Amino acid sequence: MQRILSTQLTHHVGETVRIAGWVHRRRLLKSVAFLIVRDSAGLTQVVVTDPAVRAEVEALTEETVVEVTGTVVARSGDAVPKVATATTPAGVELTAPTVRPLGPPAVPPPFDLYRPALTASLPTQLDNAPTALRHPSRSAALRVSAAAVAGFRAALDARDFVEIHTPKVVSSSTESGANVFALDWFGRPAYLAQSPQFYKQLMVGVFERVYEVGPVFRAEPHDTVRHLAQYTSLDAELGFVADHRDVMAVLRDVVAGMLGAVAERGGGALATLSVELPAVPAQIPEVHFTEALKIAGAPADEPDLAPAHERALGEWARREHGSDFLFVTGYPMAKRPFYTHPDPARPAYSNGFDLLFRGLELVTGGQRLHQHADYLAALAARGEPVEPYAGYLDAFRHGMPPHGGFAIGLERFVARLTGATNIREVTAFPRDLHRLTP
Amino acid sequence: MQRILSTQLTHHVGETVRIAGWVHRRRLLKSVAFLIVRDSAGLTQVVVTDPAVRAEVEALTEETVVEVTGTVVARSGDAVPKVATATTPAGVELTAPTVRPLGPPAVPPPFDLYRPALTASLPTQLDNAPTALRHPSRSAALRVSAAAVAGFRAALDARDFVEIHTPKVVSSSTESGANVFALDWFGRPAYLAQSPQFYKQLMVGVFERVYEVGPVFRAEPHDTVRHLAQYTSLDAELGFVADHRDVMAVLRDVVAGMLGAVAERGGGALATLSVELPAVPAQIPEVHFTEALKIAGAPADEPDLAPAHERALGEWARREHGSDFLFVTGYPMAKRPFYTHPDPARPAYSNGFDLLFRGLELVTGGQRLHQHADYLAALAARGEPVEPYAGYLDAFRHGMPPHGGFAIGLERFVARLTGATNIREVTAFPRDLHRLTP
Repeated sequence: MQRILSTQLTHHVGETVRIAGWVHRRRLLKSVAFLIVRDSAGLTQVVVTDPAVRAEVEALTEETVVEVTGTVVARSGDAVPKVATATTPAGVELTAPTVRPLGPPAVPPPFDLYRPALTASLPTQLDNAPTALRHPSRSAALRVSAAAVAGFRAALDARDFVEIHTPKVVSSSTESGANVFALDWFGRPAYLAQSPQFYKQLMVGVFERVYEVGPVFRAEPHDTVRHLAQYTSLDAELGFVADHRDVMAVLRDVVAGMLGAVAERGGGALATLSVELPAVPAQIPEVHFTEALKIAGAPADEPDLAPAHERALGEWARREHGSDFLFVTGYPMAKRPFYTHPDPARPAYSNGFDLLFRGLELVTGGQRLHQHADYLAALAARGEPVEPYAGYLDAFRHGMPPHGGFAIGLERFVARLTGATNIREVTAFPRDLHRLTP
Repeated sequence: MQRILSTQLTHHVGETVRIAGWVHRRRLLKSVAFLIVRDSAGLTQVVVTDPAVRAEVEALTEETVVEVTGTVVARSGDAVPKVATATTPAGVELTAPTVRPLGPPAVPPPFDLYRPALTASLPTQLDNAPTALRHPSRSAALRVSAAAVAGFRAALDARDFVEIHTPKVVSSSTESGANVFALDWFGRPAYLAQSPQFYKQLMVGVFERVYEVGPVFRAEPHDTVRHLAQYTSLDAELGFVADHRDVMAVLRDVVAGMLGAVAERGGGALATLSVELPAVPAQIPEVHFTEALKIAGAPADEPDLAPAHERALGEWARREHGSDFLFVTGYPMAKRPFYTHPDPARPAYSNGFDLLFRGLELVTGGQRLHQHADYLAALAARGEPVEPYAGYLDAFRHGMPPHGGFAIGLERFVARLTGATNIREVTAFPRDLHRLTP
């Protein structure tokens, strides 16, 4: 008999079926015992009245993997949900069951997976990630994450971007000399890539439009709720742009595509997390950095936006434009990486932008330099040596079109979308200053 | 005026259009000059008769990025191709052009990108990857790669697998102590992950079915045509299997999905590479390892299949079953990793399999151990300590279903599909014993 999932039970009322999953909970009443079995789709209530079966069920520990064969009956009573969800059994149950463990009795985790919320502290959850992630609140965030990545790729595939895979071990750092992990590469010094920045730029010379989904590494010495030492970067880069506005237009469509995919594929997960998705305006409002300082009430000589300024801008965007999203353009060159293209009309400001979401920075991007001489001048102006970058910069001698791109930190995107206060809540196995296991 | 791509020209005959791309080639005849412009879609022939424009074109070097505005006319002459491809201009050309460079004259690469084949040695190509990859033969392989990955994901998405992202830095090696890159993690020893093996197994406990596309790292001290120190691993793992045959059934569908996506999305690339895709039988033929030794004419006590044996099996599968694919099952336990599940009926043999493609190993997979006690016994039998794996193995105390999975090396898959003799030909920026740049 083919195994079916909990969500398929409603189509089999009156039939004998086989299900399988984890012992989620047992309720042992006087005349009847209830066994709740969890599978990847949801929960199934198994009603046990036979004393022999009851004895077997009593011996089962939570999280033991079992297979149950029984008859599907519609549940009596009011307010019975029609569809199984990760937290509520559906309007059907299994009766007259036979129960077969698929392994030895499990050791229950140090928290109750059947409670609506995981009550264990986050460190305890992270120490016990293989079981903590089985809780609907944690697995739902990872389903949102998977849907968001699928939406990212689908939006870019539809716009003729080509997916690439680039080296994660490099001979020199890309973003800056700081926060880089060093390793031994067959006796030579090497580093974990902080971003695919240069590689995606080089590949614009091949495919014009490229994207990559992959891990990036920052030896972040601070222990904060929004930094990880490894995170998943969603990178895109496109050539033949007029300026950064062409990049922003693609980013707008990509964010809309990501949210659309989350709505479509992550519906149950959103309900579990009580998340309402924001709408992406057809035209996301934008303000220049100098204007943003005024709106936020910051001094005109501030070189960057502080978190409080971003929050003020988020409120302004909602109030003035009814938008959860806001582009801030023209950040000062001094605060952007050396590969940033200046605004030709105001060279102290850049063709770089941030996308704010509800007053938090969600994405950074911009137009890049595309001429070799401009790179040399930019490095000289910052007093940075050319040598570490020489191999990459050389490609810009061979004809590169005006181009730009952006990078979305996947975990940060999901955390902001789901309202998680710590990025580790939406990361399966986070890596940071203190955490290298599990 | 909006830029159009070379492949769109045929829809604009008689109109004035704007194209942009790289100077692919110039042919300066006495009365006319031809400028061939390459963009991401193909080539455009620009006909120059105006002496002033000709002087501009004469100053252009190959690979300079240009924008051309001109009138689209149908080309005269027989045997004119109807559609632009990466190597042949389409049945239209641009006349009365204005040409505007989008940057300084490019330094031409040390090989001719306009020739049908890249004549430079592979090391020269790899040293100059940013320009060598612009050659159709190299970029086509990367397009095949992108299509194959898309097919992998689509096949698994359709089967309720959830995409995951796992740590690439770990506290102990997963596959074996050898060939592992060591790094310094905030003062602690750490290693680059050789595979996501344990993590995908742990995530079966959460989602039942998971996959990951990501980099893996092997400090491979041998310089061969089929090994890289970083490659892209396409990993899948599924729970609640009866045995390895359930895994093989999914793998069959995944490989068919990958080839289907290559056919659909990589059609032009296949033509460029002169590749004909193999058919995947609805039921891929399979032989047990002991039978495979007989077919290959190998001694019955051989512990593994040598390359010559695999070739003989490939010929046998084609001859006897008309199949380019062949499953070999039941490899001896001694030659499989410690997490391999034995064949309950013949415990010296495993529930592990290889998928051979035209006599070459393409995929390895199998059923895994799922009980904690079995892991302890397996490590003890091999004389391996438990301690390095203790953190991961602990998860198997908390209820894991019978499960299995497989891993496909993306670059190796594409190399075998396209007939590339060296895996580096189908890798954008390979990493190996000698190569850490570009």
